[in-house]
Amino acid sequence: MPKKIKLGILGGGGDSLIGVLHRIASHINDNYEIVGAVFNPDLGESIKFAKEIDIPTNRIYNDFETLVEEELKLPKEERIQVCSILTPNFLHFPMAKKLLENGFHVICEKPMTTTYDEAKILQKLLDKSNLVFAVTHTYTGYPMTRQMREMIKSGALGKIQKVDAQYYQGWINPIIHDKSKRGSTWRLDPEKSGISCCMGDIGVHAFNMIEFTTGLQIKSILADLNYLYDDNKMDIDGTVLVRFEGNAKGVIRSSQIATGEENGLTIAVYGDKGALKWEQENPNFLYAMSDDKPVQIYKPGHAYNSELSLDGTKLPPGHPEGIFDAMANIYLGVARAIRGEKYNSGEFPTMNDGVRGLNFIESTVKSHQQGNSWVNLIK
Amino acid sequence: MPKKIKLGILGGGGDSLIGVLHRIASHINDNYEIVGAVFNPDLGESIKFAKEIDIPTNRIYNDFETLVEEELKLPKEERIQVCSILTPNFLHFPMAKKLLENGFHVICEKPMTTTYDEAKILQKLLDKSNLVFAVTHTYTGYPMTRQMREMIKSGALGKIQKVDAQYYQGWINPIIHDKSKRGSTWRLDPEKSGISCCMGDIGVHAFNMIEFTTGLQIKSILADLNYLYDDNKMDIDGTVLVRFEGNAKGVIRSSQIATGEENGLTIAVYGDKGALKWEQENPNFLYAMSDDKPVQIYKPGHAYNSELSLDGTKLPPGHPEGIFDAMANIYLGVARAIRGEKYNSGEFPTMNDGVRGLNFIESTVKSHQQGNSWVNLIK
Amino acid sequence: MPKKIKLGILGGGGDSLIGVLHRIASHINDNYEIVGAVFNPDLGESIKFAKEIDIPTNRIYNDFETLVEEELKLPKEERIQVCSILTPNFLHFPMAKKLLENGFHVICEKPMTTTYDEAKILQKLLDKSNLVFAVTHTYTGYPMTRQMREMIKSGALGKIQKVDAQYYQGWINPIIHDKSKRGSTWRLDPEKSGISCCMGDIGVHAFNMIEFTTGLQIKSILADLNYLYDDNKMDIDGTVLVRFEGNAKGVIRSSQIATGEENGLTIAVYGDKGALKWEQENPNFLYAMSDDKPVQIYKPGHAYNSELSLDGTKLPPGHPEGIFDAMANIYLGVARAIRGEKYNSGEFPTMNDGVRGLNFIESTVKSHQQGNSWVNLIK
Amino acid sequence: MPKKIKLGILGGGGDSLIGVLHRIASHINDNYEIVGAVFNPDLGESIKFAKEIDIPTNRIYNDFETLVEEELKLPKEERIQVCSILTPNFLHFPMAKKLLENGFHVICEKPMTTTYDEAKILQKLLDKSNLVFAVTHTYTGYPMTRQMREMIKSGALGKIQKVDAQYYQGWINPIIHDKSKRGSTWRLDPEKSGISCCMGDIGVHAFNMIEFTTGLQIKSILADLNYLYDDNKMDIDGTVLVRFEGNAKGVIRSSQIATGEENGLTIAVYGDKGALKWEQENPNFLYAMSDDKPVQIYKPGHAYNSELSLDGTKLPPGHPEGIFDAMANIYLGVARAIRGEKYNSGEFPTMNDGVRGLNFIESTVKSHQQGNSWVNLIK
Repeated sequence: MPKKIKLGILGGGGDSLIGVLHRIASHINDNYEIVGAVFNPDLGESIKFAKEIDIPTNRIYNDFETLVEEELKLPKEERIQVCSILTPNFLHFPMAKKLLENGFHVICEKPMTTTYDEAKILQKLLDKSNLVFAVTHTYTGYPMTRQMREMIKSGALGKIQKVDAQYYQGWINPIIHDKSKRGSTWRLDPEKSGISCCMGDIGVHAFNMIEFTTGLQIKSILADLNYLYDDNKMDIDGTVLVRFEGNAKGVIRSSQIATGEENGLTIAVYGDKGALKWEQENPNFLYAMSDDKPVQIYKPGHAYNSELSLDGTKLPPGHPEGIFDAMANIYLGVARAIRGEKYNSGEFPTMNDGVRGLNFIESTVKSHQQGNSWVNLIK
Repeated sequence: MPKKIKLGILGGGGDSLIGVLHRIASHINDNYEIVGAVFNPDLGESIKFAKEIDIPTNRIYNDFETLVEEELKLPKEERIQVCSILTPNFLHFPMAKKLLENGFHVICEKPMTTTYDEAKILQKLLDKSNLVFAVTHTYTGYPMTRQMREMIKSGALGKIQKVDAQYYQGWINPIIHDKSKRGSTWRLDPEKSGISCCMGDIGVHAFNMIEFTTGLQIKSILADLNYLYDDNKMDIDGTVLVRFEGNAKGVIRSSQIATGEENGLTIAVYGDKGALKWEQENPNFLYAMSDDKPVQIYKPGHAYNSELSLDGTKLPPGHPEGIFDAMANIYLGVARAIRGEKYNSGEFPTMNDGVRGLNFIESTVKSHQQGNSWVNLIK
Repeated sequence: MPKKIKLGILGGGGDSLIGVLHRIASHINDNYEIVGAVFNPDLGESIKFAKEIDIPTNRIYNDFETLVEEELKLPKEERIQVCSILTPNFLHFPMAKKLLENGFHVICEKPMTTTYDEAKILQKLLDKSNLVFAVTHTYTGYPMTRQMREMIKSGALGKIQKVDAQYYQGWINPIIHDKSKRGSTWRLDPEKSGISCCMGDIGVHAFNMIEFTTGLQIKSILADLNYLYDDNKMDIDGTVLVRFEGNAKGVIRSSQIATGEENGLTIAVYGDKGALKWEQENPNFLYAMSDDKPVQIYKPGHAYNSELSLDGTKLPPGHPEGIFDAMANIYLGVARAIRGEKYNSGEFPTMNDGVRGLNFIESTVKSHQQGNSWVNLIK
Repeated sequence: MPKKIKLGILGGGGDSLIGVLHRIASHINDNYEIVGAVFNPDLGESIKFAKEIDIPTNRIYNDFETLVEEELKLPKEERIQVCSILTPNFLHFPMAKKLLENGFHVICEKPMTTTYDEAKILQKLLDKSNLVFAVTHTYTGYPMTRQMREMIKSGALGKIQKVDAQYYQGWINPIIHDKSKRGSTWRLDPEKSGISCCMGDIGVHAFNMIEFTTGLQIKSILADLNYLYDDNKMDIDGTVLVRFEGNAKGVIRSSQIATGEENGLTIAVYGDKGALKWEQENPNFLYAMSDDKPVQIYKPGHAYNSELSLDGTKLPPGHPEGIFDAMANIYLGVARAIRGEKYNSGEFPTMNDGVRGLNFIESTVKSHQQGNSWVNLIK
């Protein structure tokens, strides 16, 4: 019988978007329960936030070390089983290390660490344990990137000969073109953000998507990065030539100065028998191409999809997963109304909409039955 | 200080898709807590399901009447505040009625009732109360339908002169073309499904979307329905001419035999100054048109959107809300791994992906610094 | 051995767009030669225009009657074989009638006549002759509407059960909303434009497209037209319910007040085995759908297309036919340069572009051969 | 007063696609008249082809040298003014050279020559003359690439910071993967095709499109080409890093093994104030983006476009230029019918379609006038 897994949260309090994303995701399949957390370096803030999201405050800890220490005192069946690390990047490594050393499973935001050496240390620790460690390359969770992986694994594309991945954004424009801003933001400070801005933040997603979908390892790379201004210390754009074993080649294109692009992650994989293309901003459409047949559009939820893809779809074809959010927006409006808070007239459909709907339905049947004549709706 | 609202669930147990949708939606903004339910007519099944989704079983009731009776005995601060009605259509009315009579707020699936007369009865009850009653026309929760409503309200289209709404699906084909199936499915049985199949199930969404986005009321309609076979008793397709006050006209097109269409809800509203178009299967794109300017594409999360639209967006531009689900799929895989259940190799990114990523990032910088030469990744 | 057909042109002089369209179309497959014309009611204007487009002026006639009279005096092998009627609508009938009576083939712009009675008279005349008579429903000439027809004919969709055709434009907005303009334009004057504006001008194309692609005849219709203003005498919008033999139904939607729509002709045909959708503004994409398979995109020029479709494609896949026009634009720029006329710097690629191109090609190979190092291009 | 320019054609006979393209393009604006040609190395074939396309045979010459010699004997006003060179690549240089030396204008297919050295020689010749020389980079003739150029020139994008051009095709797959085919095709033989296959044939178009639209010169490049098989002598895929003056960078991606891609030329230009994107397979849509505004879609023929763009559009908005071809297909069917040749029933709309159309139009008005009741069409 399933029983919710006990989840601890490190970071992700207040307005943190990544915090919202992990909390919602942990709820969606009824598998996790948040039992402990250090949302914020300040204990008062952490407790305040716990109350805001209405979870018990008794296991909100002063700091990460205390969390580990106190949880270990609890009987195993009550103890946090897995921790989600949502803190600034430089904390990923020490937290992940200590968690693994003390028998906790880990869900770690990306980048896993700030250096490759740290990453190797974690890997050795993990190899000696029986623990689960996930890095949240979120885009691998989409039904159609999973379908892409499974189709390639099944040989649908034949031998891979070319790969093209893109991750274009434009958000850094207002910062990079302003001398004082580009000199002061932590994003462009190697002390705080590590060795790379554009490649470390988004290029690595494109890289991961290539290896995830193709099942191949990139063998070598040649990179040209762009810093745009001489006084800027971090790459904000770059193109990376990539090579695989056996003459397959490709390119990773990544930018934070691609003006007007929002979250333009795309991937195209070309084999000698077929090809697949996908775009993150239209995640429900997977394009399958071959030399001599019409292009095919795969969509989520159909029986023709792979098990891995179908496992990631909860709704019938044609319903974007964003419909959960649409429904959540309605629940949000209702919550405001119930609490007597201010809300906007369009936030949820009222009974009046229900009444109108019934009037409409009955009128359509009446009009049809009368030989297609006009029927007035009731005001 | 916010505190979770106590939610009761009627129906929606087992594999029910609508149950999943409401549960997830109620979690998303940290506003609701499920405290009581009648998931299933069979108490054993209800309790079993409660355990599956790991909620307390002490307030899982034998039937709806018991739920009302027992909850009323509880002190007000512990009592269910709002019930979501997810049962078969014919139960909506008696449940909603009793809930309103006993002071519960209601979130009711669509159609609100099976007849207009019932709907009017509920409306009178509601008018005398201070209760909140929502009908889940889910599509009104999308950020871009909300944006459409607000733009029209603000006068961006001028005077509305034409409206065209479509809701095309093809799912009933395998049933309607099989004589025995069309004679036996409850969907096509007026006793069980009410007066209309296509109009009642989906045409009414198109109708609602017109009134939601335009803020106008449809004055009169002329309908031509299609039953396709003489022995079929319910409409499975239809076109409805609609008229508004003041010479504006339009059309509602609805079908369940539009072969290959999945969930093709679309709406176009044309005014004398501009027009807006939206499609449910690409819900993040809202097209704004006018006589003499380039077409504009509005997308969620931008500062140029209305407050109502922004209120329904939790992520930066370019992230489809389905990303919550992508992340949830990763959490699901991790849960399986933690529990030692079988899982597929692609279900979540592992530490190995993290190690590869760091190796990639450091190599790109190295390649660039060496004057754009090739660097091998470590296997 | 092919020999160009002798073509006469009636109307279409000066800036007439329809004149340009017919002249270019008649050139494209090297089948026609314009030998005679009445471009304009004024002979001087006709001759001036003939000189502008550089065709001989000896058979530019004073009026249509003279053209017929004089051409009949010529030996058969010199005589005009076919006339294109591009005049205002009310002249179509008398011209077509006289041409048929005198043994000329006819290519007639749409609408063929201004009344159904006139159309029937022409049909009787034609039935007694061996002449060719074409009405230029241009959209039937697209490779993918032809493919649609052939796929339906071959049974790919099974039995047709629903049809939806749209022709939305917004161009009449600036006229219809201006009282003096709507009262004075010939477009909205029944004396000059016949019984219908929107249906007569564009709705009929949607109608034709349905019958062309499905091979079915519409049996009966029910129409709701919109005149928008009480003082307006002609429909500028309308929806038409249509019925076929055997329970298939559909809708034709047509508008000239669909603000911001340009030339939005679309058609969707749903059968019990599959469906096809096409849009005029993206004419190279034909979407094929069915209940249980990925959507397929058919494109022109592929071997998988029908003979009728392939016959209408002159270029390999991926080249929109508009490329003829792109090349023509370059030829136009060159003509201006040769004539010493003023031209814009981007009108045609110059030798400098050629030089740059060769420098680029050689540099790419050099860079690759040097182990992927930087090579400067020559300024 | 305009007078047609006398055009000579070198190559492009028989089934040559490039021949069709140039002939149609030269007709489209009524500026050129083909007066002389060497369509084929074999005089008999040349004459036969001239008869097929019905042009006079008196100036069809035995070879290029004779053409030049004989034309020079003619009085200047009768002489060929401009020659289109459509021959195999290695003939471009000697022909262009001789034409320039003898005072003929030239329209030359791409690549202009087979080496950069040859190109420089032509450039010197041209510099000393008053002649016009065009290289047919056809894609610069599209209205929306012209619009792109003009918008960038006007400063709409601010300072260019990133450029990404793609030209992906998949057509060489069946050749490259077959050892005997890749060893024997002239395409992959450096003797016949010059130094590069993929870059020389299509990469150079992407290169040209960058310089055409941005008005900038690429300063240096770094290329990685792919030959896929060790015994293959020519690149069939490659990625080229590019740099401009002043820190702007970019990438050219080109492939003939991008399986399923047809003619995938795309360009994206990002400046510090805005960005523009265009795709050849949807040539009428130009996407304009900026940091904080809705994406805009520019389309041909609107008053908001630049003069250069409008100059390349002959039709109202919403009509793809391919409509010339659709109309031409109808003219083709009519020609077959007039000649008594076999033709397909869908090749042109007949009078019957005209009759049906009138019946439809009158019926819609009748139905509306009768209060929206059903009207039967006449069979």
